[in-house]
Amino acid sequence: MADHNALPLIILTEKFASLPGIGMKSAQRLAYHVMSMQVSEVEEFAEALISAKKNVKCCSVCQNLTEKKVCPICSDTDRIQSIICVVESPKDVTAFERTREYNGVYHVLHGLLSPMDGITPDKLRMKELLARISKGGVEEIIMATNPTVEGDATALYVANLLKPLGVKVSRLAFGLPVGGMLEYADEVTLFKALENRNDM
Amino acid sequence: MADHNALPLIILTEKFASLPGIGMKSAQRLAYHVMSMQVSEVEEFAEALISAKKNVKCCSVCQNLTEKKVCPICSDTDRIQSIICVVESPKDVTAFERTREYNGVYHVLHGLLSPMDGITPDKLRMKELLARISKGGVEEIIMATNPTVEGDATALYVANLLKPLGVKVSRLAFGLPVGGMLEYADEVTLFKALENRNDM
Repeated sequence: MADHNALPLIILTEKFASLPGIGMKSAQRLAYHVMSMQVSEVEEFAEALISAKKNVKCCSVCQNLTEKKVCPICSDTDRIQSIICVVESPKDVTAFERTREYNGVYHVLHGLLSPMDGITPDKLRMKELLARISKGGVEEIIMATNPTVEGDATALYVANLLKPLGVKVSRLAFGLPVGGMLEYADEVTLFKALENRNDM
Repeated sequence: MADHNALPLIILTEKFASLPGIGMKSAQRLAYHVMSMQVSEVEEFAEALISAKKNVKCCSVCQNLTEKKVCPICSDTDRIQSIICVVESPKDVTAFERTREYNGVYHVLHGLLSPMDGITPDKLRMKELLARISKGGVEEIIMATNPTVEGDATALYVANLLKPLGVKVSRLAFGLPVGGMLEYADEVTLFKALENRNDM
């Protein structure tokens, strides 16, 4: 914004623009929108920012974001605590919970291995995963990282680390997405679908 | 977000989703991004929201957003105070200022006439525009509203209102956008370009 603009408005625009996926144009539109909101609404927004940052921590068990010391999933006695689904981020937990089919627990790594970007195992919540396993009672680890180079590398790393400890490590199935069209599937997906074909 | 999520995080997601152009998916991504920010950064963001809302008001002369009672453009003695460019919103002022070619002043209507949506002249900053003109010294009003039904209607309304007062009212030129391709111009634009052709 040009220098004829009010400074607080320029600052707010820059704050919005610093968020991922928001460019200068959108940031400007959002800042102007804030001007048209009620003072009470803006205060609630500001409080929501502070409250989320201050009150939401990582669950001491699974590392997912929660307000409590132990998250509702880890403290749910109806869930099978011996199966741990290992995911990259809290978003992935939400995705699994939406299926309403998974009844085990989770472990959030908060990232994927990427030595090129300096993300080594000590940058992830690996220690916490090993601590959970060393306590005993864990029967299976489901590696549910994305089917990308980093996701595969992380899954392989965890598998190599845990297999000697006698824990079963599995990986999500790759194949055709349900409802997808065969003709639009990429070569690797189609090859995986062929390779992992099931008896009928 | 499902109910396994921390409440402050759900609230923050909803706040982001209430902003224009931000859906639930983006709102969730933004909320998680806030979690990864430093506490001080989040506090600065919250303060920027409050500060912009509380300290930015409408200029008492041109109704553009400003921190001062009279905005820097209206109080700039180098600018021609007798030419007023009438625009829909503060964003349009920024667009004109980017050209660095306009040396008059502005009047921000904060909307366009749209009787269907209940936006009648009393909902816009028309009174303030008439007050400026009645003080005398205004030679020309440039109607710079968008070339839409509402923009044209507003321009026509203002022109009919001001012409009896002996003020010259002009409208932005319509024609081919510079750098645009003739073959891609719509019929109305091309007709306007033909109608308003200039001698070479």
